Amino acid sequence: MKLEMISTGEEVLSGQIVDTNAAWFSDAMMNLGIELQRRSTVGDRLPDLVSLFLERSRVADLILVNGGLGPTSDDLSVEAAARAAGVGLVEHAAWREHLENWFTKRGREMPASNLKQCLLPEGAILVDNPVGSAPGFRLRLNNAWLFFTPGVPAEFRTMVENQFIPFMRETFDPGAETALHKFLTLGHGESALADQLARVGLPAGISLGFRPSLPHVEIKVFARGSEALAVLPDTCARIRACLGSAVVSERCPNLAEEVHTLLRERGRTLALAESCTGGMLASQLVEHPGSSDYLLHGVTSYSNAAKQAILGVPASVLATHGAVSIETGEAMATGARRLLDSDFALAITGVAGPEGGSEDKPVGTVVLALADREQVWTQRLQFGSRSRTVIRSSSCAVALDMLRRRLLDETIIVTYPFFPCRGQAIRRHEE
Amino acid sequence: MKLEMISTGEEVLSGQIVDTNAAWFSDAMMNLGIELQRRSTVGDRLPDLVSLFLERSRVADLILVNGGLGPTSDDLSVEAAARAAGVGLVEHAAWREHLENWFTKRGREMPASNLKQCLLPEGAILVDNPVGSAPGFRLRLNNAWLFFTPGVPAEFRTMVENQFIPFMRETFDPGAETALHKFLTLGHGESALADQLARVGLPAGISLGFRPSLPHVEIKVFARGSEALAVLPDTCARIRACLGSAVVSERCPNLAEEVHTLLRERGRTLALAESCTGGMLASQLVEHPGSSDYLLHGVTSYSNAAKQAILGVPASVLATHGAVSIETGEAMATGARRLLDSDFALAITGVAGPEGGSEDKPVGTVVLALADREQVWTQRLQFGSRSRTVIRSSSCAVALDMLRRRLLDETIIVTYPFFPCRGQAIRRHEE
Repeated sequence: MKLEMISTGEEVLSGQIVDTNAAWFSDAMMNLGIELQRRSTVGDRLPDLVSLFLERSRVADLILVNGGLGPTSDDLSVEAAARAAGVGLVEHAAWREHLENWFTKRGREMPASNLKQCLLPEGAILVDNPVGSAPGFRLRLNNAWLFFTPGVPAEFRTMVENQFIPFMRETFDPGAETALHKFLTLGHGESALADQLARVGLPAGISLGFRPSLPHVEIKVFARGSEALAVLPDTCARIRACLGSAVVSERCPNLAEEVHTLLRERGRTLALAESCTGGMLASQLVEHPGSSDYLLHGVTSYSNAAKQAILGVPASVLATHGAVSIETGEAMATGARRLLDSDFALAITGVAGPEGGSEDKPVGTVVLALADREQVWTQRLQFGSRSRTVIRSSSCAVALDMLRRRLLDETIIVTYPFFPCRGQAIRRHEE
Repeated sequence: MKLEMISTGEEVLSGQIVDTNAAWFSDAMMNLGIELQRRSTVGDRLPDLVSLFLERSRVADLILVNGGLGPTSDDLSVEAAARAAGVGLVEHAAWREHLENWFTKRGREMPASNLKQCLLPEGAILVDNPVGSAPGFRLRLNNAWLFFTPGVPAEFRTMVENQFIPFMRETFDPGAETALHKFLTLGHGESALADQLARVGLPAGISLGFRPSLPHVEIKVFARGSEALAVLPDTCARIRACLGSAVVSERCPNLAEEVHTLLRERGRTLALAESCTGGMLASQLVEHPGSSDYLLHGVTSYSNAAKQAILGVPASVLATHGAVSIETGEAMATGARRLLDSDFALAITGVAGPEGGSEDKPVGTVVLALADREQVWTQRLQFGSRSRTVIRSSSCAVALDMLRRRLLDETIIVTYPFFPCRGQAIRRHEE
């Protein structure tokens, strides 16, 4: 099966939005063991769309088309598909009724422009959209099936999962059985991980993929065929042993979800004190339903006044050691934990840049602290002259990793080759 | 001039890395008023590359090719270009000398694999790479100039700016002058906005684009040609009048940056109290350098205990009205503001779902409050059965919009057709 993708839309072509649908789709296909042959991106111009549909339909077997199904004048995919097929547009009565009901239920009248979304090329087969107003459709053209999907990510993903993949499986030979296992790593470089894993001999049918996304590298172990599937668990065990403390999750796509899951499984509570990350850590946890089970509070102690008034960091500590110091990190974590007597607290204070660095504490210097009822673990890392966003997200990741290791009774402070350590401390709370 | 782009590389095609070079290039071209016609993405397979070069070179005038110039076996762009042109490879002696000098200067011997980077298709013109080991080159094929660039972003950008753009300007007619103006709207549907704007007559050469990204729709006004450029300001004024309170920014890509900019311009300070958004609002502001100028603190008051202990919400208010109520919202905003006596405070408390809803307060019910030193404005909105992420980001947007309107002395509580209002209050603080 030759599979291609066509992305439409001026804003995708012009780079004003990054084509996350394309990345998501390719990844979803890869998880099924299916290779995409080509992706073409065009703007909202009718002749360009028509000629692209005609051209690719002579080469590919199946083409996923994304975007251009909205109600406005720059949404041209339906009309272009009809022209390419040499047919007219017909109103889909059932979809019109569905849309009118949708608006009626919400006490609103259907805007005239939504009528456009009830039109399909003659002979096209409607594909249901349970989460939006634009239906998808599929259409046979030359050698290929063209499968049209809306650009709104949630609608696109739902339609691919519920409609496109089953259609593809039914219509084309799915190929050999495949399986995939993922390792999420933290703070190690892609090439260093690749060099390390070169020592692990891979059985036939098993291959590795690396997806770097700072501060993480996700390692995919891909098995194709029943023999490879049989030895996948053993291969993963050898990879696990080889990677050691670099691995931070094997079951969740991100570290926040891993810690969220662990805290709920173990029924423990958490408080947060964030300076340079400014709510990012709280927000990463609250993203997951059920975070109220464990998250008692978070304080974005962005000013020294907040560190003193809310967290109780002594003015003398701030004056002597500065806001970005082991001592302030310890006091923030301890103060945050005490506020509502949670089992744990995490604290982050640092220089996210681009301004505010000094010789002693350059941009990228961040202190991370974990307090439980007995002790507080603190480390000062150097995240380098990376962007503000990367420094902040790396800080959240290391803080979460400290808590993860504490929950699993592992060593709490480990080495991250990408983030040099500039100091650490482990202290018992003074009674 | 018909301009296209070809992106090569398995990791780009498979979505393992997002194609930031493509987004950057398209944006750079758009800033020059040049429209890209199409972008094609292929993996590292020689026959795919050769056929794509041949095919697009019959259609386009100028093709920027990105990637595949590295030293490893999966870098195939040079060989594919030579095959497409039906020529052999020749060593570029001057580049070899340059590379050998480069390694010698660094006290290293040139690895054998770099020899590959001295080979060019016969007849190709070398394009200097001042920042890396892979030279670019350009080659005439069928109707088009193919311009080959390396995939490393810094090298790619340098080569586009210093070599590609001057070459393009010299060789082709740069076309009509263009300009772009953007309106960011909040809480209105794409189709309703389009219907509304249909009443604004657009002069020739001016077109509209809509980019929905919940809870926002961005409206782009695109002018092409000197006559359209001359009437763009007047057209934008009529669009602005037509859209009324739907517009929340014309200068920033997001509402957080707009409020960040306003707060800094006016030298005012802010405190935050977040429940269901859990740090998301703080994080959106802290994303922008300089947020420490105005953000004194943020409290993620995720538990009732936190609302009482940190923000001073009376237990009786929580008991009588519940955590998601006008009264609790008011008390959170007032308490957050008083903590460090900031000029303003924003508070958010709601049911982000998917669990936790009741008949009276279904999932999507959110209370938003803004306090200044004199008053507190509160509204309870219904964000509907949308996803947790959308409910949270919509809540942040409406809260920011309340503050924005306060800073601009506009009406603070307005109607958002997408988010029905279920109650509101404006109260003076009791002295």
